[in-house]
Amino acid sequence: MGLDTDINKIPRYLLDTTDPIFAFNKQIIDATHDVTVAYKPNLAFYESLGVNGWNSLEKTVNYLKYNYPDIFIIADAKRGDIGNTSAMYAKAFFDHMEFDSVTVAPYMGEDSVKPFLTYVDKWVILLALTSNKGAADFQYMTENDERLFERVIKKSAEWGTEENLMYVVGATKAEMLADIRKLIPNHFLLVPGVGAQGGSLEEVSKNGMNDKCGLLVNSSRGIIYASDGEDFADKAREAAIEVQKQMEAQLKVKGLI
Amino acid sequence: MGLDTDINKIPRYLLDTTDPIFAFNKQIIDATHDVTVAYKPNLAFYESLGVNGWNSLEKTVNYLKYNYPDIFIIADAKRGDIGNTSAMYAKAFFDHMEFDSVTVAPYMGEDSVKPFLTYVDKWVILLALTSNKGAADFQYMTENDERLFERVIKKSAEWGTEENLMYVVGATKAEMLADIRKLIPNHFLLVPGVGAQGGSLEEVSKNGMNDKCGLLVNSSRGIIYASDGEDFADKAREAAIEVQKQMEAQLKVKGLI
Repeated sequence: MGLDTDINKIPRYLLDTTDPIFAFNKQIIDATHDVTVAYKPNLAFYESLGVNGWNSLEKTVNYLKYNYPDIFIIADAKRGDIGNTSAMYAKAFFDHMEFDSVTVAPYMGEDSVKPFLTYVDKWVILLALTSNKGAADFQYMTENDERLFERVIKKSAEWGTEENLMYVVGATKAEMLADIRKLIPNHFLLVPGVGAQGGSLEEVSKNGMNDKCGLLVNSSRGIIYASDGEDFADKAREAAIEVQKQMEAQLKVKGLI
Repeated sequence: MGLDTDINKIPRYLLDTTDPIFAFNKQIIDATHDVTVAYKPNLAFYESLGVNGWNSLEKTVNYLKYNYPDIFIIADAKRGDIGNTSAMYAKAFFDHMEFDSVTVAPYMGEDSVKPFLTYVDKWVILLALTSNKGAADFQYMTENDERLFERVIKKSAEWGTEENLMYVVGATKAEMLADIRKLIPNHFLLVPGVGAQGGSLEEVSKNGMNDKCGLLVNSSRGIIYASDGEDFADKAREAAIEVQKQMEAQLKVKGLI
């Protein structure tokens, strides 16, 4: 579940609390933790509020770790820089805050990714094929029958393991998801773009699910903004359960449950 | 001048102040503002300290804007995400904080870059060719005689103008810098990697300088950590003047001063 918490979209009455963003996240989390495998705060939404936003983010991560320690937490931050700078980003997300994973951008190559992989029990989720229109600008570039997103996957699979490296794979191009599964049958994939961005969960599951599921399917706005009234947490729970049911159906199709 | 301010590298006596990172930056800025054209805080170093680090960053930007309003400020953040998320990052750096520019990663394409370009009098500095070893992993990928970093430059040059778009071009491959100048003779280039990362200012100038200079050459550690004693600001000034003299010599070679 993506926590893309936008001060302009949360119920108005929360604005009277001392920390509206955290108040929103806390209620969403309390209402959905038993039907959610991972929360994914989107850093941009917190940074747009500066120090206050960063404070809300830290409180959210601490709240999750303290109350629901088994739930996986993803920093959707898309960081990536030269080695000593990536090491500082890793420190921010894995040491200072207790995220379990962080999304990383591959453009700068191996030394920009590896510092995140040195942490025990932490994960890199590397951008491979994204779900937005601009994905076509560079990610499909081809050399020797290999597209950039495939090269990213093949090279980076040597830097990490199935136990510390996942990939962002957008849901909008189902046939490409099948190609990716040929390269990395076992890695987990974080799949955005189901729902709001137009991907189909059925297609994603057909082409991307493996015998351990292997998919973390994200939904953000469809769940957390299911209602803008005082019932927002209850409505978010209903929306989360709906997604869970759809996922359950796909797991049954594959014979996994 | 890169403000890669590391709590473990600043003079020990500053740790007794209420905000050591800001205290360091303030003294560095006061000692160097008249010999510096731009400051470039590296976000990772601030984020590694969480809310406190973000607070030091905001104070640094405010201090610069209030006291030295003509100096250009670069958020070295290397952000980039789908459109609505990039818009939030733009809000963080251009609205909430008063940075003049932000470094952006190109992997996700046009809609990940454009939200930053909608701001008046603000700049995107797009990663093209970076100076680290990992640059070779993906940036040299070639299709139809065009390398990825060249494709990034050619495509993105249509999204922005010479007045709102610059490029990060590492100093370590001088001949590639010459190739890049053929594509974009007039855009400004932010050049990291001179000094600590091994590039030569003479080579960079020979291959990258245009008739308006067209280069922002970065130095970070070589200046701000010139001394770890109480004379650190004076020594930083000396180091900055040294870089300025080297740049002056190159500008004279090109007949620009």
